[in-house]
Amino acid sequence: MAEDTADPVEHVRHKPPTVLDRPRELILACPQFNSNVNLSRIVRLLGCCGVSRVVVSGRNKIDPEIARDAVHSVQVEARSSLPPVLKRFAAEGYRVVGLEQTNRSHDLMHYPFQRKTVLVLGSERQGITPEVLACLHDTVEIPVWGLPYSYNVATAATMAVYEYCRQFPRG
Amino acid sequence: MAEDTADPVEHVRHKPPTVLDRPRELILACPQFNSNVNLSRIVRLLGCCGVSRVVVSGRNKIDPEIARDAVHSVQVEARSSLPPVLKRFAAEGYRVVGLEQTNRSHDLMHYPFQRKTVLVLGSERQGITPEVLACLHDTVEIPVWGLPYSYNVATAATMAVYEYCRQFPRG
Repeated sequence: MAEDTADPVEHVRHKPPTVLDRPRELILACPQFNSNVNLSRIVRLLGCCGVSRVVVSGRNKIDPEIARDAVHSVQVEARSSLPPVLKRFAAEGYRVVGLEQTNRSHDLMHYPFQRKTVLVLGSERQGITPEVLACLHDTVEIPVWGLPYSYNVATAATMAVYEYCRQFPRG
Repeated sequence: MAEDTADPVEHVRHKPPTVLDRPRELILACPQFNSNVNLSRIVRLLGCCGVSRVVVSGRNKIDPEIARDAVHSVQVEARSSLPPVLKRFAAEGYRVVGLEQTNRSHDLMHYPFQRKTVLVLGSERQGITPEVLACLHDTVEIPVWGLPYSYNVATAATMAVYEYCRQFPRG
């Protein structure tokens, strides 16, 4: 069924990466997750997407079996609390955007990201805490069409990072 | 920093789902993965996205702790081999699209999906086999900007399903 049988489809695994015109100005900010697997998956995602920085509240271990080489390219910064960090990023001109269902959240699929963005995630059970919600410029949410009506946090982060990269494919 | 402090941002967890105008005409086709965790994560993703059908080659167990209520809404069909199934879907008018880096793959971010699509995934190590590659109309790939130069299969599936849903937000 391939369109041109004279030129068969062949694997080209591990193609060279797309080169960014400038370093990505996206930073992730995470709470202490219940599962280190989620953080490790997010670190691998960030590595592949050319995002080099994630701030994490509390201690979190990265599993190198999951994060792979991204453990070397992604800087994981542990902080005791997120609000002071988010306020500092805002003062530096970053748009601080939470991924959360709220009374005022924008649809991720129609949200124009600012290049300088801090994407804030919530924990698996509680989501983003009220203290952190108060530090956000915007919240974005992902449409849900069916059960269980909530995405895993690493899955949701994947969609949001994909959308950001779609809007800034060259950085 | 909230835009309107008179109307504070508040959680609205587990909002009602977006209603589709018609059932989704997206079907997933998966090989036997090395990890049942990946398939279980994909099933949860599909449930949330309103996709009700996934065909799996070989036996695969779904972990209900991971897939949650999607175990009830997503029909997992075990088949001994994918090529005959894919040929049948093609005869029924589905576009059979593999998620794989090949010599002819389209950039996912610019690929116009057909509504009736079968999205074919590869296994964690080998990707899509040559026998399955020969059954595809198209391949799509996701740009990679950094190490480890390859997305986890459930992460890649998340991006592709997100992109499809972005193109068909109402089904």
